[in-house]
Amino acid sequence: MIAVLSGGVGAAKFLQGLVKAVDESEVVAIVNTGDDWYLHGLKICPDLDTITYTLSGQVNTEMGWGRANETWNAMESLEILGGETWFRLGDRDLATHLYRTQRAQSGATLDVITREITEAFSIGCTILPMTNDTVSTKVQIENRADLLDFQEYFVKLRAEPRVSKVAYQGCESASVLKEAMDALLIADQIIIAPSNPILSIEPILSLPGIKECLLERRNKVIAISPIVNGKALKGPAGKIMAELGQEASVLGIAKRYREFAKYLVIDNLDIEYSGEIRNSSMEPVVLGTVMTTPDVATGLAKEIIRLI
Amino acid sequence: MIAVLSGGVGAAKFLQGLVKAVDESEVVAIVNTGDDWYLHGLKICPDLDTITYTLSGQVNTEMGWGRANETWNAMESLEILGGETWFRLGDRDLATHLYRTQRAQSGATLDVITREITEAFSIGCTILPMTNDTVSTKVQIENRADLLDFQEYFVKLRAEPRVSKVAYQGCESASVLKEAMDALLIADQIIIAPSNPILSIEPILSLPGIKECLLERRNKVIAISPIVNGKALKGPAGKIMAELGQEASVLGIAKRYREFAKYLVIDNLDIEYSGEIRNSSMEPVVLGTVMTTPDVATGLAKEIIRLI
Repeated sequence: MIAVLSGGVGAAKFLQGLVKAVDESEVVAIVNTGDDWYLHGLKICPDLDTITYTLSGQVNTEMGWGRANETWNAMESLEILGGETWFRLGDRDLATHLYRTQRAQSGATLDVITREITEAFSIGCTILPMTNDTVSTKVQIENRADLLDFQEYFVKLRAEPRVSKVAYQGCESASVLKEAMDALLIADQIIIAPSNPILSIEPILSLPGIKECLLERRNKVIAISPIVNGKALKGPAGKIMAELGQEASVLGIAKRYREFAKYLVIDNLDIEYSGEIRNSSMEPVVLGTVMTTPDVATGLAKEIIRLI
Repeated sequence: MIAVLSGGVGAAKFLQGLVKAVDESEVVAIVNTGDDWYLHGLKICPDLDTITYTLSGQVNTEMGWGRANETWNAMESLEILGGETWFRLGDRDLATHLYRTQRAQSGATLDVITREITEAFSIGCTILPMTNDTVSTKVQIENRADLLDFQEYFVKLRAEPRVSKVAYQGCESASVLKEAMDALLIADQIIIAPSNPILSIEPILSLPGIKECLLERRNKVIAISPIVNGKALKGPAGKIMAELGQEASVLGIAKRYREFAKYLVIDNLDIEYSGEIRNSSMEPVVLGTVMTTPDVATGLAKEIIRLI
């Protein structure tokens, strides 16, 4: 069984490869819920949805999130009403949030709702929220005292302001989903997906017991660098790392993960760093990590599962 | 100024005529909110929306509710998820509920939100919710002990079960919207729209102070019968009146309204009841009340405003 700590788009692409490289029923994605929030009264879980849409072949491949063949009539009408439309919710995508909100208000927990949704999308692997409790990733930016909601920073402000601090509100009192912890305890491999280390992976690592579990199982832990040639493939990972005083390179990634991950998968473009990564006590694995197509992702996954 | 006590479809048709018969800025619709409810976490106000869509020319004229040129992609996707889809929410219609929910959660009251929405729809008359408080119309049906939500009875069960009781939960402690009461106190005419007397008009009448105000101003009150030739033009008004032991005819309507309305507008088909209506101390007004087109509605409104 392979457990994958997952954010959104990058993780989804890797998972799409992984479920073709192994028996998909052996894959357990443990997904960040720190970006989850309420908008217009609806409960929205961006990373869970991106993974669900991607694995079901229903993602908008151009954007990497949202649904394919989407229509935008609700947003168009909401715009005329003067409503908040910067967080784009397509008509088909809305159904997922309507369903989740209805079920949550009926008392269903997020893991149960997620199972119902992923079953309806005929997903063959297991997709778990990291917790059923509320953890909210908050971002402090320059020249503003208050903490911003993740989505306000990430979508509304397009991750443009300089970040001075990131917090994971509620993480200390949240409980890791039992099924997720069980998976981490027995997994043959634990893969840290090429997701934003600060915004997507750290919320998972911030939950009580996760780091201790990874430390214990360090030989089984493989991190895939989301940074290639000094830049994130997508999103602001490199920018935020730099703003928080961390090196925006595979070395910065090594520094974040070396304590509890034995392997670091880096792209061919970063081969020059192999020595330094080894010096930082991680084992570098040099592969083509830029997942331009699902087949490339499958090839990458096949190489990675061969490691252990 | 003309105040109109309004339900949904029937009232909307009449208002559509009325705003062409007089200066539309002199029309104030006081709208039933007893059917309002939450679904999928969204605040839905069916009667307010039907009136808004109708007066803006954006209603689905075939159904009488919902929006014209609507798409149903959210419902289609929700169906695949196994969600509750018996209450049909079109993609464009959803925007109204998203907006209202967002504003309500920001602390805006329903009258303010309604003003924002009707302004966005360029409505020239005033549309007021009867109250900012929660009043919930509940229906008891045969062979069930619990009270049903109005929409469950009306839409899910298609108003088919036999009704044994209708209640307006919260009406005693709700306050009539001040602007609505002010309008009733000074209106040149108060018109009771041809809406369901039990499900649409009675929730308004049940609010503290409304009946007293109408009693005081009885000479200015004109009710339009929603029953023509022993049947409701639309919906289950006749059926429910009969089930509750009331006569499903213009005489049953007269009995409900005679205490506080001087005039009862009835259709030409019911001319035979004129004498009995006069005997019940109302003044019968015989007109063509079946509003087959907006022009017919305008003609009807012109006749009615001539009465006082």
